[in-house]
Amino acid sequence: MNPAPSISETTLGRPLEGWRLRLYTIIFEADTKAGRAFDIALILAILLSVLFVMLGSVATINAKYSSLFSWVEIGFTALFTIEYVARLICVRHPLRYALSFFGIVDLLAMLPSYLALFFPEVYVLVDIRVLRLLRIFRIFKLTAYLAEFATLGSALRSSARKIMVFLSVVLMVVVVMGTVMYAVEGEKNGFTSIPTGIYWAITTMTTVGFGDITPKTDLGRLIASTMMLMGWGVLAVPTGIVTAEMTAQRRETRQTLTSTTRTCHECLSEGHQADANFCQHCGAPLTPYQH
Amino acid sequence: MNPAPSISETTLGRPLEGWRLRLYTIIFEADTKAGRAFDIALILAILLSVLFVMLGSVATINAKYSSLFSWVEIGFTALFTIEYVARLICVRHPLRYALSFFGIVDLLAMLPSYLALFFPEVYVLVDIRVLRLLRIFRIFKLTAYLAEFATLGSALRSSARKIMVFLSVVLMVVVVMGTVMYAVEGEKNGFTSIPTGIYWAITTMTTVGFGDITPKTDLGRLIASTMMLMGWGVLAVPTGIVTAEMTAQRRETRQTLTSTTRTCHECLSEGHQADANFCQHCGAPLTPYQH
Amino acid sequence: MNPAPSISETTLGRPLEGWRLRLYTIIFEADTKAGRAFDIALILAILLSVLFVMLGSVATINAKYSSLFSWVEIGFTALFTIEYVARLICVRHPLRYALSFFGIVDLLAMLPSYLALFFPEVYVLVDIRVLRLLRIFRIFKLTAYLAEFATLGSALRSSARKIMVFLSVVLMVVVVMGTVMYAVEGEKNGFTSIPTGIYWAITTMTTVGFGDITPKTDLGRLIASTMMLMGWGVLAVPTGIVTAEMTAQRRETRQTLTSTTRTCHECLSEGHQADANFCQHCGAPLTPYQH
Amino acid sequence: MNPAPSISETTLGRPLEGWRLRLYTIIFEADTKAGRAFDIALILAILLSVLFVMLGSVATINAKYSSLFSWVEIGFTALFTIEYVARLICVRHPLRYALSFFGIVDLLAMLPSYLALFFPEVYVLVDIRVLRLLRIFRIFKLTAYLAEFATLGSALRSSARKIMVFLSVVLMVVVVMGTVMYAVEGEKNGFTSIPTGIYWAITTMTTVGFGDITPKTDLGRLIASTMMLMGWGVLAVPTGIVTAEMTAQRRETRQTLTSTTRTCHECLSEGHQADANFCQHCGAPLTPYQH
Repeated sequence: MNPAPSISETTLGRPLEGWRLRLYTIIFEADTKAGRAFDIALILAILLSVLFVMLGSVATINAKYSSLFSWVEIGFTALFTIEYVARLICVRHPLRYALSFFGIVDLLAMLPSYLALFFPEVYVLVDIRVLRLLRIFRIFKLTAYLAEFATLGSALRSSARKIMVFLSVVLMVVVVMGTVMYAVEGEKNGFTSIPTGIYWAITTMTTVGFGDITPKTDLGRLIASTMMLMGWGVLAVPTGIVTAEMTAQRRETRQTLTSTTRTCHECLSEGHQADANFCQHCGAPLTPYQH
Repeated sequence: MNPAPSISETTLGRPLEGWRLRLYTIIFEADTKAGRAFDIALILAILLSVLFVMLGSVATINAKYSSLFSWVEIGFTALFTIEYVARLICVRHPLRYALSFFGIVDLLAMLPSYLALFFPEVYVLVDIRVLRLLRIFRIFKLTAYLAEFATLGSALRSSARKIMVFLSVVLMVVVVMGTVMYAVEGEKNGFTSIPTGIYWAITTMTTVGFGDITPKTDLGRLIASTMMLMGWGVLAVPTGIVTAEMTAQRRETRQTLTSTTRTCHECLSEGHQADANFCQHCGAPLTPYQH
Repeated sequence: MNPAPSISETTLGRPLEGWRLRLYTIIFEADTKAGRAFDIALILAILLSVLFVMLGSVATINAKYSSLFSWVEIGFTALFTIEYVARLICVRHPLRYALSFFGIVDLLAMLPSYLALFFPEVYVLVDIRVLRLLRIFRIFKLTAYLAEFATLGSALRSSARKIMVFLSVVLMVVVVMGTVMYAVEGEKNGFTSIPTGIYWAITTMTTVGFGDITPKTDLGRLIASTMMLMGWGVLAVPTGIVTAEMTAQRRETRQTLTSTTRTCHECLSEGHQADANFCQHCGAPLTPYQH
Repeated sequence: MNPAPSISETTLGRPLEGWRLRLYTIIFEADTKAGRAFDIALILAILLSVLFVMLGSVATINAKYSSLFSWVEIGFTALFTIEYVARLICVRHPLRYALSFFGIVDLLAMLPSYLALFFPEVYVLVDIRVLRLLRIFRIFKLTAYLAEFATLGSALRSSARKIMVFLSVVLMVVVVMGTVMYAVEGEKNGFTSIPTGIYWAITTMTTVGFGDITPKTDLGRLIASTMMLMGWGVLAVPTGIVTAEMTAQRRETRQTLTSTTRTCHECLSEGHQADANFCQHCGAPLTPYQH
């Protein structure tokens, strides 16, 4: 998330100077007036270009304004290429930026534009540049939003192993069930191969239930019914994991808040437990806790 | 939620008098007999008018009683217009009422009736007046119901930023996935445009799974399967947020209720259990607990 | 859940005697050998009769054994009628039994058999007698199972008002959304009437998503997408309510357990809080709590 | 989960010697170099064989390489048979291994290969050998993964009775609703029999909603709508049970971790915070916390 070396870091070694420093401030910083304007213009450009690609994919609209869409796309590709090069030029460690999280996103978002020159069918993938909007969190109330992100992330990460085990078991179950349903229902009922059966099993276990493939035989429906009832219970597990993490996190945040009510008169440290008689930091007796 | 200036407020300045005060009491207050009767009559009228619009939309019924439905609708429109005007007349600050929550709902509920004179196709939207039933909460055990509302609301509001971040990420994911699926499946398999692909991605991520558009290619099904499995985990997040808030809120409510009820007369400590006879901190006898 | 007056109760007034008492013991008690045998035979009879009705509804099977199914049903109807009459005869207050929970279930389970004499099309409803299997909880480890039931029930009941408010709001939303979708999509896309639109809105909000009716226009799909994303958040609410109740209930059970570690040496009462210095029941000083 | 007698156990009685001991170490132990290599080779073989069966089920691929798939399958069957026999030979109690959890999985995974000689249509069931991948948890960081498994398992087991009661009630409800819908909709709308109706009811209650069978009549749609709204609330129950268990478990784990780490040398009190310098109960200095 740390897209580029900060200015203070550059003072060790060859510092940014002159136009490169000014460019850096505009492109990477969001606190100055020029930097903020640049960021907002960039977000609008991304939104606009994504919108154009979307509209261009609608057959009736594309038929009318086909050449307009081509020119607009060339314009946006040029614009984003210039911006990417400018970023590379003005940072002190271009490679480090190129390999950072946002650097890779920026590159990924530009690739389809150039690939489309050789493989026109991948053209629509330029829409992937919507990912660049992740920057939006950096601009508006940066830290608060990122903190929320980090909270969600750490909640999921601390349960990562549980989720991995869970996913492995689910994958085995869907392979087995997909195979069984392929054997029971067969090709004539839409289960044309084992991979198709597995796709159906995933559709069913996650309660999506497209209905493009459905069991027709009595045995198949019995197995499907059992799967659905069991599956619901099984899929309560990720919800349980995530909720338990969030509840715990919310409680800890609160505890930190509630444990600040007592202050040691000697060392002025806070955060003592309600039933403590002595300061846990300097050993001085605490005034008895007033309930 | 505070639909109109209360009577006590109106005593400062030009107070309501005579028939306006009586009208105000009938229309806005729910505690007098006349006011209660008016509210119940209003709710019945709303329910009836909604029912008539619903029945009128059923082709076979409408064919038979077409003119009846027209007259009924004219009658209800007149009735609700009179009621709206009466509300405006009897309050001290008509504009303040018109801009209050219920004032806007009342206006919104009337608009389609008049718009239908010029655009007959919006006629069915008069059903929006079902929103006026929100008043129902004000009438039956007012405060208790609104407190429940407020509880739900504050639970969601305190997580608003988390939910916003979550929604933004989900929106980016569905744009990317919709684009990818449009590129992979193409028009021949129902993914006729990127917006259609995004619609499909939302259908899939939320586990609704209509099945009007489904992947047909092997690659498309593989991507869809991954989306479903990941999507389930991702969508456990809002459940986790809401549940964590509710658990926290329930715990706090309980703590407040159990800990503020009894106080020791000697040491003034609080938080005694309901079945305690003596203060657990100084040993003084407690006054018997009044259930 | 208390289906009939207990034996101890009958000693006040005209007590059950002779064959009525023996019959009562067999039919209503599950602890004697004969009573247990009767209950198991009854459950098997119910399961068998439900199975026969199910099989009888399958066209291919019914074609072959049509007369067999008729005779079997007549036999079961006779059997359950005799059993119902026997229950009425042997209890001291037949009316009280007839109006009790299980009495009503027993009667409901018999009604379709007789209604079918006049309205053959309701015949299949005899399957409702599967509800009589609720008795199964009374027979095997009675109290434990009923306690679980009561736990679930009280968890839901204490949130009843919250759930009612929630359901009212959801109902208003689906009426409004169903109306809007009927106006937007119209009859040509399957939204043939407002009730149909409401049915579709419920299908979508609950993430069932049958797909028999789906939006076809771009505007309709946009509205549907918004509904799905919002709907998921909204429907996290009942899960949140139920989970919060269950978490609270589980914590309280545990707290009761953990508060039994301290015993007052004077009055031998248990359940003192960890930070109590004096017995809350007799006022005697407690030995300091050993952490 | 304890697949075979450990080596230490074999020292009581006839110990494993010579090649049998070496074979045992290779096949059953995962800590030696040879044992690790064997396990990884086995997992690759299982994955490969599953992949081949999957590919073989795709008609277009099978048409081209039909004989290849036959030979590959014969090879894998021979390989897994040899491995199974080797396991039986090198353990001290072959029967005890054969009846252990992994012994049964190994046998189940081999059965279809031989059954296919007589019933070719069950051939695809050889894919069940994917279950053998459960061994994967034993190999990579064995204990940690199994602990996660045990956590999930115990969370579900302690709620087993609640879940049983819940499932019984759900089963009764779907039987009743399936019967009612069969009576209301009838064969012409796809509800061809009561079992079909029950299959539909399960599809609806679990929010899967395939859409292969859907209500067409107004009454049927009304009942279905009620089922969906109620069903959502009912199905929040398993999520609630699982989440409550997980939240409780997480809280206990945390409490055990934070409270057992530090003991005051003076008053022997436990449960000190990680950053405490003095005992909060007697004021004695604490030995610095070893992170």
